[in-house]
Amino acid sequence: MIYLTRRERFSAAHRLFRQEWSDARNEDVFGKCSNPNWHGHEYILFVTVKGEVNPETGYVINLKELSKIIKEHIIEKLDHKNINLEVDFMNGKMATTENLAIEIWKQLKTPVNKAGAELHSVKIVETENNFVEYFGIKDL
Amino acid sequence: MIYLTRRERFSAAHRLFRQEWSDARNEDVFGKCSNPNWHGHEYILFVTVKGEVNPETGYVINLKELSKIIKEHIIEKLDHKNINLEVDFMNGKMATTENLAIEIWKQLKTPVNKAGAELHSVKIVETENNFVEYFGIKDL
Amino acid sequence: MIYLTRRERFSAAHRLFRQEWSDARNEDVFGKCSNPNWHGHEYILFVTVKGEVNPETGYVINLKELSKIIKEHIIEKLDHKNINLEVDFMNGKMATTENLAIEIWKQLKTPVNKAGAELHSVKIVETENNFVEYFGIKDL
Amino acid sequence: MIYLTRRERFSAAHRLFRQEWSDARNEDVFGKCSNPNWHGHEYILFVTVKGEVNPETGYVINLKELSKIIKEHIIEKLDHKNINLEVDFMNGKMATTENLAIEIWKQLKTPVNKAGAELHSVKIVETENNFVEYFGIKDL
Amino acid sequence: MIYLTRRERFSAAHRLFRQEWSDARNEDVFGKCSNPNWHGHEYILFVTVKGEVNPETGYVINLKELSKIIKEHIIEKLDHKNINLEVDFMNGKMATTENLAIEIWKQLKTPVNKAGAELHSVKIVETENNFVEYFGIKDL
Amino acid sequence: MIYLTRRERFSAAHRLFRQEWSDARNEDVFGKCSNPNWHGHEYILFVTVKGEVNPETGYVINLKELSKIIKEHIIEKLDHKNINLEVDFMNGKMATTENLAIEIWKQLKTPVNKAGAELHSVKIVETENNFVEYFGIKDL
Repeated sequence: MIYLTRRERFSAAHRLFRQEWSDARNEDVFGKCSNPNWHGHEYILFVTVKGEVNPETGYVINLKELSKIIKEHIIEKLDHKNINLEVDFMNGKMATTENLAIEIWKQLKTPVNKAGAELHSVKIVETENNFVEYFGIKDL
Repeated sequence: MIYLTRRERFSAAHRLFRQEWSDARNEDVFGKCSNPNWHGHEYILFVTVKGEVNPETGYVINLKELSKIIKEHIIEKLDHKNINLEVDFMNGKMATTENLAIEIWKQLKTPVNKAGAELHSVKIVETENNFVEYFGIKDL
Repeated sequence: MIYLTRRERFSAAHRLFRQEWSDARNEDVFGKCSNPNWHGHEYILFVTVKGEVNPETGYVINLKELSKIIKEHIIEKLDHKNINLEVDFMNGKMATTENLAIEIWKQLKTPVNKAGAELHSVKIVETENNFVEYFGIKDL
Repeated sequence: MIYLTRRERFSAAHRLFRQEWSDARNEDVFGKCSNPNWHGHEYILFVTVKGEVNPETGYVINLKELSKIIKEHIIEKLDHKNINLEVDFMNGKMATTENLAIEIWKQLKTPVNKAGAELHSVKIVETENNFVEYFGIKDL
Repeated sequence: MIYLTRRERFSAAHRLFRQEWSDARNEDVFGKCSNPNWHGHEYILFVTVKGEVNPETGYVINLKELSKIIKEHIIEKLDHKNINLEVDFMNGKMATTENLAIEIWKQLKTPVNKAGAELHSVKIVETENNFVEYFGIKDL
Repeated sequence: MIYLTRRERFSAAHRLFRQEWSDARNEDVFGKCSNPNWHGHEYILFVTVKGEVNPETGYVINLKELSKIIKEHIIEKLDHKNINLEVDFMNGKMATTENLAIEIWKQLKTPVNKAGAELHSVKIVETENNFVEYFGIKDL
């Protein structure tokens, strides 16, 4: 088993708030992230897959293929978008980095399998000071 | 003369478009940056000041003071904000990195002078692949 | 389970040596790190916690709270300090990055638990070429 | 158990192709990486070892020793070399990052053991957008 | 005047040597860089252009256009290539980073002008420890 | 004229204070940097030299030679040292990054000239958020 990671980036706007909460409570819990006029980040996404090395190619999976899967299922839906308003798989979810990692995992699991590898983890760097990693339903 | 640079960061949303243009023309010129639902970036700001070294402190300017000036005049106005809608000094300007650098320069010139140094340049990194630098009205 | 990591930094001085050893043996084992006049590093600390996502907030733990815990228990004690002389939890320990990671883990375990998450790992980057990671008493 | 990682770099040339395949098939599978005139990368290698902290030194392993092992067994053989033509342990293997990680692991396992630690993982960053990690024959 | 920089990358193989010199002299002057079997780097290219901000778009030059110019004139010719054997504008030149920066400047000067901006500098990072910058025939 | 930059690093301890000032005034001006027990940084040094390209080698200056000059005159004196107590050329100077850059410039000017190039600038990164650059007595 070997682990291969592909890095991609997307620029997106989001906002953290609960409609049923008062402005004061939203401000208290989410701070500046609850700004009604949105703000944004340069998200960095690391997708790690695992598998045996194909003896003919020396690859776990062809990086071109992995990159294509991530672009098609994730980047095209998130890049230069509003996470709260425009991303189907985030519909009805709080637009936190935690939820983003979990939902990206769900989007990628099947396509990565079909391409002959297994999805290991999804890591999202929101700012240089915080990032989130998700390994699916089994604990690491 | 010695040059001292302070790095600060801000997360902001923006959109590039001209109201008097058709959607098609906005899309053609600004691409995904014209998305009406906004998108965002993790902007990194480098402010460079210059001056003689104070022989008593060994400082051009006290970094705490420089950082305070940048936070008060720039970061508090931009961080977790919408550049098009909420930033007074960007009012009526296209929200490009170029204009942001020029307007940040104008905001900082006087306060930096008052603190005893001279503003040399404002550099803004929008993504890891592009940045803008402004040196004021005199060419470098 | 999802993993959330917070990055913090601290500048500190330290020295590696054993008083009962000769200067020559200290020099042989610890090299330049045994300099009696101290030297220092820009330590980068990554604290990873894990837990379930709170469905109401979309958070594992509020980053503001995690950052506050790390600042109060770790950064205030280490930043701009001498690790050998001034840091209570390093008292009587060799000031290596290994021991620093283990002792920081011990400081953070309870406060992170009280905040509703579980401490997963403490990683310390001493220079760009070496870092240490500790996962507590259970092996990874 | 604590984990210690050492970073090293090497500049090398390589080419991905199978002699028994047509140029078209090589181009299709390996793309620009099949260029017969070679191309190169700035590989970044992270070697992670684990072990108990030696109470006398506060070290898992002396970094000088770990660095010396990596330089002698890996860097001297790979730096400024052609991976396909000049590296004994890559002889007859596809020069992918996956195979490089696996073979580097095999080279380091015994010397790291002799130095009193256990090899945990070998990670190779090929470009800023892709890296590979190998943990030996047991899955993580 | 404002300065806009675009970053691009290319992976290439090269070798430093003079055919008329003995192997010993090549080894003495160029060290490991004279390896006849080539080695390679992950070159990072920063192209800086300058100009007035277009009041209608807020751009010095459209980044898409600048990126297209760099890709067409530089990256397609260098990426996954052998600098000594395959790059027309390096023909007959020593494949140093210095010469690469000068020749890339010559390639870009006219196309950048035609696109309405002025080429300011070409910077090439060969490894994390060394880079070269060229500002054309006028000294900075 | 082309500009070549070499990056080197050093770990050092320092303290900012004036003996003739009260503790309160030192604390007020220098903050945590006045800690009597020292603290430290991972300083990153960028030395830029300029000159014509030697047509025979394609080099401004041989990087090995430049690196040797910097190591001999600067790194050996600063690395794992106490800047206030152990560095001859900082004797009697406030141990700020500004003064460090100016004094490193003075140390390097002559040796770089003798090696056939001209010293252009000395840049020192103290933390990821602040750095200083010095271009000698002529303003940039």
